[in-house]
Amino acid sequence: MMSVKNIYIVGIGLIGGSIAKDVKRLNPNLNIFGIDSNAGHLEEAISLKIIDKMATLEDLAQADFVVLSTPVDVAVKLLPEILDIINDETLVMDVGSTKRDICKAVEDHTKRRNFLATHPIAGTEFSGPKAAIENLFQKKTNIICEIEKTAFKLQEKALTIFRIMGMRMRYMNPEAHDKHIAYVSHLSHISAFMLGKTVIEKEKNERDIFDMAGSGFASTVRLAKSSPEMWTPIFKQNKENVIETLDEYISNLIRFKDQLNQDDFDTIFKDMKETNHIKDILKGIA
Amino acid sequence: MMSVKNIYIVGIGLIGGSIAKDVKRLNPNLNIFGIDSNAGHLEEAISLKIIDKMATLEDLAQADFVVLSTPVDVAVKLLPEILDIINDETLVMDVGSTKRDICKAVEDHTKRRNFLATHPIAGTEFSGPKAAIENLFQKKTNIICEIEKTAFKLQEKALTIFRIMGMRMRYMNPEAHDKHIAYVSHLSHISAFMLGKTVIEKEKNERDIFDMAGSGFASTVRLAKSSPEMWTPIFKQNKENVIETLDEYISNLIRFKDQLNQDDFDTIFKDMKETNHIKDILKGIA
Repeated sequence: MMSVKNIYIVGIGLIGGSIAKDVKRLNPNLNIFGIDSNAGHLEEAISLKIIDKMATLEDLAQADFVVLSTPVDVAVKLLPEILDIINDETLVMDVGSTKRDICKAVEDHTKRRNFLATHPIAGTEFSGPKAAIENLFQKKTNIICEIEKTAFKLQEKALTIFRIMGMRMRYMNPEAHDKHIAYVSHLSHISAFMLGKTVIEKEKNERDIFDMAGSGFASTVRLAKSSPEMWTPIFKQNKENVIETLDEYISNLIRFKDQLNQDDFDTIFKDMKETNHIKDILKGIA
Repeated sequence: MMSVKNIYIVGIGLIGGSIAKDVKRLNPNLNIFGIDSNAGHLEEAISLKIIDKMATLEDLAQADFVVLSTPVDVAVKLLPEILDIINDETLVMDVGSTKRDICKAVEDHTKRRNFLATHPIAGTEFSGPKAAIENLFQKKTNIICEIEKTAFKLQEKALTIFRIMGMRMRYMNPEAHDKHIAYVSHLSHISAFMLGKTVIEKEKNERDIFDMAGSGFASTVRLAKSSPEMWTPIFKQNKENVIETLDEYISNLIRFKDQLNQDDFDTIFKDMKETNHIKDILKGIA
């Protein structure tokens, strides 16, 4: 993998750990270092052979490539500090689900050119090093923001790594990313969390009622297993966009309820028929 | 399969077709007849070898076992007519997602004892004979309502068939079934349909935005691929319960939005953390 020798993963969870697994498999000679505020996660990552060694932020002076894969509030705070420590040839990339704040946090940093803002659209509802899996990124989309602000040689280095991991690239500005991702990702998480909450609240005194739940419920509510540590800061950073999506979602639900109340089943049928179109849209997504 | 020889499937779709496949595999000597208002589906079911022969309602006089697997509005209308035609030894069961109206429709029928109200909690988002799959019911729950109203010998026959198919039985009255299933099934479908509608409406003029959608969105919105022909009558029959679940779901979404507006991220975090409990609840559901 070209001149990359020492890779540092800051935040060894589902995404950071999965990246570590892929780059190590593709180039076993790399040294993979892990940095994490959670000592238990670090030990777990060592015993799972996801990382070779533990490290600290100061060690980043030796880094060729830094993957910043912490929750997005921590990432925004750490990124400027990381850029202060690294050398001029180091590539630093984040993988967070929000892009505006992190780009903003380093827009005037003297080492802005060492940073690449990315969002690999991949994951599961699980978290921590144990959740890391090989080939998570195969055929997945990687959204890259403000690529023009990254040094050309580092762009090349990053794209080579992404291509080896099997990703296809999309380019977008941070504001557009945050606006659209609110619809196709953040809203789904809220919809699942609130569905889970509604059903748990209602059925908490009913024994065995979840025996009645089938695979449809499980699928719809799956994202409610996601990590609140990761998702609270995402909702915070993308608050305005998320509120907009919620307004529209709530309006559609209220309209559906009104149609039920008015026995307007023709409209209910028509709306569902049109929404069936999601079949074609989702073709190719797991 | 005891004295069962001629099985009639009324409504050859995902559920009816999957039952046909299972009983035929478990007993190849059975004659499986298909009745469907959709001639195309009948031909498809023949060519897929799901049924042996087409039939009409009048033929049900020769039936040992009738599976009524049409949309629930059709089922409520057909069931009394079917009971009028069958002989005294015939077992008729429905498999619909609502149980109050169908039980009500035949409560005073002279052949009420020939009918068993069931709801196998199994399915996919697809429909029609092509959607039928073997072993769909393995390890799934089958909710049986008013079993005491079915003749004991026919109960035994039905339970034998269900056990061979791998199902576990739960007994419930129709009203309780409809109330709880609104939470663990019907609400999920509305949540998915409205999520799909919201995102499609917003992004209809944006090219390629669904490239940004990952497996999380696909999972949450999966049920929006479901058949409006099947689901509109379910929502109609279970209107009161569904409205209640929608009220609570909408309230939770509005509360979440208010918390976002008020920057009350502590409560958002806490609510999500509590809802994570869905992990344990869903253990064992696909």
